[in-house]
Amino acid sequence: MLAIDHKSDNSVEILFERMQDVLASGSDALTDSEVNGVYKYEWSVRVENIIAVPLSCNNKIIGMMIATNLLDRNDFDTNNIRLFNAVATECAIFIGNQNHFMDLKELLIGSLKALVNSIDAKDQYTRGHSDRVAIISKWIAEHYSKSKKIGQEDIQKIYLSGLLHDIGKIGISEEVLKKPGKLTEEEYEEMKNHPAIGAGILSEIQQMSEILPGILHHHERFDGKGYPKGLAANNIPLMGKIVMIADSFDAMTSERTYRKALSVDDALKEIEANLGRQFDPAIGQIFLKSDITKLWEILQTGQNDDQYHDSSIDFGATAIGALVH
Amino acid sequence: MLAIDHKSDNSVEILFERMQDVLASGSDALTDSEVNGVYKYEWSVRVENIIAVPLSCNNKIIGMMIATNLLDRNDFDTNNIRLFNAVATECAIFIGNQNHFMDLKELLIGSLKALVNSIDAKDQYTRGHSDRVAIISKWIAEHYSKSKKIGQEDIQKIYLSGLLHDIGKIGISEEVLKKPGKLTEEEYEEMKNHPAIGAGILSEIQQMSEILPGILHHHERFDGKGYPKGLAANNIPLMGKIVMIADSFDAMTSERTYRKALSVDDALKEIEANLGRQFDPAIGQIFLKSDITKLWEILQTGQNDDQYHDSSIDFGATAIGALVH
Repeated sequence: MLAIDHKSDNSVEILFERMQDVLASGSDALTDSEVNGVYKYEWSVRVENIIAVPLSCNNKIIGMMIATNLLDRNDFDTNNIRLFNAVATECAIFIGNQNHFMDLKELLIGSLKALVNSIDAKDQYTRGHSDRVAIISKWIAEHYSKSKKIGQEDIQKIYLSGLLHDIGKIGISEEVLKKPGKLTEEEYEEMKNHPAIGAGILSEIQQMSEILPGILHHHERFDGKGYPKGLAANNIPLMGKIVMIADSFDAMTSERTYRKALSVDDALKEIEANLGRQFDPAIGQIFLKSDITKLWEILQTGQNDDQYHDSSIDFGATAIGALVH
Repeated sequence: MLAIDHKSDNSVEILFERMQDVLASGSDALTDSEVNGVYKYEWSVRVENIIAVPLSCNNKIIGMMIATNLLDRNDFDTNNIRLFNAVATECAIFIGNQNHFMDLKELLIGSLKALVNSIDAKDQYTRGHSDRVAIISKWIAEHYSKSKKIGQEDIQKIYLSGLLHDIGKIGISEEVLKKPGKLTEEEYEEMKNHPAIGAGILSEIQQMSEILPGILHHHERFDGKGYPKGLAANNIPLMGKIVMIADSFDAMTSERTYRKALSVDDALKEIEANLGRQFDPAIGQIFLKSDITKLWEILQTGQNDDQYHDSSIDFGATAIGALVH
């Protein structure tokens, strides 16, 4: 820690001179922050005295905490300096923990994405299906939240259930999973196990409990003819209804080995025609009325553009937080 | 916050009376803690004055911070109380973050374990292979650390590389994976891709970089006849050498569809016979000289006993921390 208590006009200059190295190594943190960094700061009053403590975390300078101009006394005393130093140390630990926490959330979402991508690669869809279903589910949930009472955490959980909806395919034989044509009745019965298998795998993980409805019920139909439980209408959990639409839309607009992808328009017509049968009419309408061109753009750039991909990792990492709150 | 400043013998009684509800709801935290809780505390001196602040986190009381008997003045003043309150609030946030962090680490290790178990279920080994290889790898690393300079974090990374060593089997066809008898040369060539596939999947995740050597090189042989790189002797990373032994030991002592499990003694003889050929002699000796009966007990209870299973989750969760440091 460094305290400068000269009562002179050039306190700031002295500060800079003495702390040049520290400031240089911390400049990323300073310019990154949302507040004006020291470099840009216009001192509004004459600097009488100053305490400046670099905030370090794992031996790296991550910022700087500065106090100037004690109001009711002439100068900072030892107690002020000690207290300020203690607070700054606390803050650095706090910021460090937050970074740590974000890192851990990124690790988790990265692991989950890598694994669902590996599983996707085994079935008839193109790579990235789970990732896209997560993005579409989030899109629907966001539009739904404009009229109904669901919060940011619910949207995050819906995103994650979209991401993991097909995790149970890990338990379906490749013979069935990779079959190019129509499945026999027996094969179809095996395939229908994947929501329950997925829910089974994730039910071992206590923190995942809140996203299970989206995994278990993403093949329930509004008319009750779906699986695994044959739930109908409002007995189907919201999460299941949303992932059902997202999954269907991506399946229709993706190439399969045995047929070409539908155009976006044709896929939307198909969804419209099946409102009240396969899909919940209210949620289907919310999806159909949304700006699909924009969604389509996000889905395309999500696959090709590193920048969007990064922000999708960011959202995923944040969403992971919803599971441990 | 509650401050009691009566100078009387019964300050503690008054504290208890006023804070009964708070103390009751916080009693778990108090009796859980390693220090003597308030309930057990024998006041060694006469209590002159006291500040007690409940530590709350997400609206739950997780503990209590108490200060008694100011030394150099008669009584606590407003500043003391404010400062103490501020420190207690900070501490509560800190403890809350730690709990949060542990929760997140548990979620991640739980997810990874659930997924490797799902993958294990697809191949010829019994369920739990990856979990056991992680435990054996940790065991070897711990014994290795007694003579060589590897630290706790290295042991944790070795544990995780043991857990994830077979993750690449997700990319091997079931036909090969589930084949009961000996593989044809072509099938064997496909099988040999699993370390590289696993490393490929995990290389997408920045934080996993430090455990990749254990994934990529767990089939390298000491004599250079292994795969994928044909590395020999000290060109094989330590992590790879350790997981190689752990993987082999568990494979030999597990039932396969086409042969019975070897006894522990026979498996150890097999390892001994292959020192310098398949296995690193030094690390093999460390393993052979360790208390295998104890390890075997851990492996058995790890599968059947909830208590050990919990502590294995604990270690795994802690180990995850090594990836984000």
